[in-house]
This record gives sequence, C-alpha cells and structure tokens, in this order.
Amino acid sequence: MKIKIFSVGGTIDKVYFDRLSEYQIGGPSIRDILENLPLNFEYEIVSLIRKDSLDMSAADRELIYAAVEQDTHERILITHGTDTMIETANALLPISDKVIVLTGAMEPAGFKNSDAVFNIGCAIGALQSRPAGIYIAMNGRIYDPRRVRKNRAAARFEEIERP
Amino acid sequence: MKIKIFSVGGTIDKVYFDRLSEYQIGGPSIRDILENLPLNFEYEIVSLIRKDSLDMSAADRELIYAAVEQDTHERILITHGTDTMIETANALLPISDKVIVLTGAMEPAGFKNSDAVFNIGCAIGALQSRPAGIYIAMNGRIYDPRRVRKNRAAARFEEIERP
Amino acid sequence: MKIKIFSVGGTIDKVYFDRLSEYQIGGPSIRDILENLPLNFEYEIVSLIRKDSLDMSAADRELIYAAVEQDTHERILITHGTDTMIETANALLPISDKVIVLTGAMEPAGFKNSDAVFNIGCAIGALQSRPAGIYIAMNGRIYDPRRVRKNRAAARFEEIERP
Amino acid sequence: MKIKIFSVGGTIDKVYFDRLSEYQIGGPSIRDILENLPLNFEYEIVSLIRKDSLDMSAADRELIYAAVEQDTHERILITHGTDTMIETANALLPISDKVIVLTGAMEPAGFKNSDAVFNIGCAIGALQSRPAGIYIAMNGRIYDPRRVRKNRAAARFEEIERP
Repeated sequence: MKIKIFSVGGTIDKVYFDRLSEYQIGGPSIRDILENLPLNFEYEIVSLIRKDSLDMSAADRELIYAAVEQDTHERILITHGTDTMIETANALLPISDKVIVLTGAMEPAGFKNSDAVFNIGCAIGALQSRPAGIYIAMNGRIYDPRRVRKNRAAARFEEIERP
Repeated sequence: MKIKIFSVGGTIDKVYFDRLSEYQIGGPSIRDILENLPLNFEYEIVSLIRKDSLDMSAADRELIYAAVEQDTHERILITHGTDTMIETANALLPISDKVIVLTGAMEPAGFKNSDAVFNIGCAIGALQSRPAGIYIAMNGRIYDPRRVRKNRAAARFEEIERP
Repeated sequence: MKIKIFSVGGTIDKVYFDRLSEYQIGGPSIRDILENLPLNFEYEIVSLIRKDSLDMSAADRELIYAAVEQDTHERILITHGTDTMIETANALLPISDKVIVLTGAMEPAGFKNSDAVFNIGCAIGALQSRPAGIYIAMNGRIYDPRRVRKNRAAARFEEIERP
Repeated sequence: MKIKIFSVGGTIDKVYFDRLSEYQIGGPSIRDILENLPLNFEYEIVSLIRKDSLDMSAADRELIYAAVEQDTHERILITHGTDTMIETANALLPISDKVIVLTGAMEPAGFKNSDAVFNIGCAIGALQSRPAGIYIAMNGRIYDPRRVRKNRAAARFEEIERP
C-alpha cells in the first residue's frame, strides 16, 4: 500500500517563534509524525502550500485540485487547516477515481495535547477502508464533506442533519 | 455514532513502577487517550482482562468472545497485547453481525514515542468505514486476521502472501 | 522547605485557541507541571498577572514588587515572560532578605519541546542553593539580572561581559 | 560554563523493547534531553556504565570514583539509578575539589510523565550554585548524601532527621 500526502498548511503545521511572539506555518508536521511510527506502508509527502486556511484563495484551491487530479495514487491524504477544510473538500468532489481524505488538527502538532496524531491515524484507517470519494476525518469521525460543518464555538466538526 | 471498547491488557496498558523495577498492566490507557481528544462520538469502555497477551488462556478468549457476542453495539474496538492479538481476532471470526477492530501498541501508551494514539485513531477510522467483520489495525494497516502475522524481529505486523 | 510561586504570564503560559486562530495567556502552567512531578517540598502558587511580558506596565511591576516584598517566604519563584524578565528582576533588586528566582520559557509549556519543565527545575535547584538575592534561570544558567541580556536573534539569554 | 556528565545507567535510561517484553538500559537519555533544549553552556557526556543500579558492584563504584576524581572539570553531573544513588554519592565524599551532583529519575526518560527533565534541570541549577561537595538532586530537593534515604514505598527521597 502506498499513500500520497499533500500538506497545505493550517493549524496542524503551526509552530511558535518566541522572538516574533507569534505563530507561523512550518513544514509538514505529518512528516515528523509518520517518521516516528512503526508503519508498514509507503508514503510520499509533498508540501503544496504553507498558509493559514483562512488565507487560502481560489487559486490555492485550483492548485490543490490540479495536484490531486493529476496524481496517480489511489489513496490521497491532505493535511489542511480546519477553517476552510470543508470548502476544499467540496471543491474536490468532481474527482471520482481516488479515495481522498482531508484531515488537520484543532491544536498544532507541536502541542502535547494536539489531536494531530489521532486524526492522521483516523484518516489512514479510512483511506484504506472507504470506496473512492472525498472524506473529512476530524474529531474521530469520517464525514461526507457535503454534510458537515465546523462548529467554531464547540471547536469541532459536526454532521449537518438532513432535512 | 457509539463505539463499545473492551480493554484486555497488553503492552499498550503497561506502566512502570520504579520501586518494583518492573512494569505491570495498568488500567485501560485508551481511556486517558480518548478523554484528552476533541471527539464527536460516544463510547463506553469496559476493562475485561489485565494481562500480558502471552499469558492469556483459552478461558480468557472465551470471556472476550462472550462479551463481544452479547454486546449490542454495532462497532466494537478491542485494545489487546500484540503477541496474541491475531489469535484472539481469529477466535472472533464466527461473529458476523458487528464491525470489530483489534488494536494495541508496540510501546506502552505512557511512552512519548508510543504508537498507541495513532493506532487507536486508525482503528476508529476503520471501525466506521468497514463492513461487518473482524479486523486488526496495526502499523497503519487494516489487516484481515486470517492473512497477517507478527514479525517479532521487525517489530511489526505483516500481510501473509497468498500462495 | 516551602516555595512561594508567583505567575505573571508570558510565553510559558501561552495556550492556543483554534477558533480564534491565536494564542492567549492561560492559567499558571507551573501548576500542571509541579502537580505531575514526585516532589518533596511544599509550594503555593498565586497568579498575579496574565499578560504578554511586552505589555507589562510600570504599575504591573509595582504590583509584583509589593507582592514579593510583603511575602513572608524565604524562597520565591516567579514565572515571567522572557521579553521583560530582566527588567522586572532589576526592579526587585532592593529586596535583600529573600532568594528570588525568575524563570520562563522560550516555548509555551504546552509544547512537546518546551523548555518550561527544565527551566523550572533549574530555578528550583538554584532557589535552595543561592544566598539571598535576585536571579534569572534561563537556558540552563543562573544569571545575575545586572549582567544578562536577551539575545532575540539567538533566542537565548546571554551574560554581558564586564568591561 | 562547562559541565562534565557521566551516565551510569538506571531507570532514567531504561527503554522498552516489545519483542523482548522487558526493559533494558539504553544510551544516556540526558543526551537527547539536552540536545533538544536551548542551552547556553557547554557539556560533554561520557557513558561509563549501563546497569540497573541494583546490579552495581564495588568495582563499578571504583570506576566512577576514578573517572570523577581524575576529571579536570569543576562541575560534574552524574545520572544514576535511584536504588543505589546514595551509596555512590557517599563513596564520592573524599573528592573535595569539585561540585558533584547526582540525579536520576523515578520513571524512564522516555515516559511522558517522567521526572527526568525536571531533575536534570534541578541538578544543573544546583551545580552552578553550590560550593564544592557531593549532592543529590531528586524530588525537587538538593540533598546531602549523608542525610538522605530513598523511601521506596513513597517512591521518593527524604531527608533523614538529625537525632
């Protein structure tokens, strides 16, 4: 099994620089996470974009779309900021020949209590279990991007009830 | 979504006691792990057995079988020692009405570099993505218990090639 | 032995809130750190101020001065932001009947790689080893506040060479 | 400032090997700890012995004594198992020209909740604050080795009351 991974920034990759007293987007934190685990699959990581997801433009989403569509792997994982993860996932819906899972973190991967490792695990579990399609792995759930929203106050993703 | 979780001991739950200069099986480490994550599903944890999996008897496996079979949840997660996880998984094969995923860890959950959080994430991703059946989530892979072995030298689970 | 601890904010206490996409000063991180260690001394923690140390005013320093001067403990530890820690330490120089050590962290205590635990250890080691006076414990060194500066580019405290 | 560090094994250096299902003494954990901190002093680490301190012999203590006595650094830190740390410290009492601090950990440095980083910080704070002599830094205290004992039941070092 081989997984292609695209990182596009977001909270999961935020690091803290004391001398600037602010957060910045660092390199793909998924690299450190996977390198320190005893895994039995191959993967390749490409850092596409390093942005807070609120700052992502239509051009950024086109870049992600093109990269994912042209990629030849069957299983694609995208680490993404949580604020616009759903928007990007919906933009990818036309791609029907791959299993694509987007994940991220509510706290930077560098934090002791970050949900990054768990979320990535969850995404990888789904990636080899679901049929082709676009999915969001957050808060221990595998969501359909057309029926999920981020509840900012509760700091979690929630299913949208069907009418 | 609700998940039922059974813990039966194993490396994942090992803790270290200095005054004895040895490790012992502690309470279900999955409890601490899940309590500290921003989750959006319900779960219930039952500690069935606290043993090194090498010390598990046929009676222990019967106990696990009965607990899983009688449980009314559709999705069941079992945290288990790695040495006999495959044996227990195979013993559960007759149960056909539930999704059952077994996972564990190569290093105790108390270790900084433990694979416990990732493996549990992976198991939970599979648990809501797979059809009814018995699965093993280790090393980032979802295995069929009839076609996997633990390679002790490499400290990982591997697929058995079909003849 | 009993130690009085005042927390006044700073990087060490910074926490991250995803829904605001920024960090804020949380409660005294030293409380969590000490509660999880097997210690053999008593301590009492008072949260005096919760500010980035760049935002501290003269009035804030007067508040710290009054609290420390009036306190009856012989050994006082102050967790402080690194940007103006030296300024506060120098403001405390008139107090001559206590051992006072200021410490903090270059990365928030919530980070896996934070220097917070080490720095607090270093401060507590000095607190019971030095004569009455004001000290700064950072980067593994115990500094005289009259002969130290923060080198922002190198992200560390350095001794000022005497002329 | 330069510190010479000798590691001689003990709980602090214990690592866990799943395939053996037991703990073993690994390399000096203090190396990893110090390498990941923003320090402003020099140090040199020598791994003298890799043993559980209960297994240390008179010959091992002679080796430590010779290494410390012949060393030309003024400040020497020894990471040591907790069970016989006091015995080794007392054996070093004849050395009067150096500041020597012994420390260790109640839980292996690889554990999330280990006291290793804090204890090493404490030892380094004492090392540059105390006059020449032999000290034990454990549980947040700097002890005189002639007046301390390890209370195994309470899992901590305690001062022996003078008669």
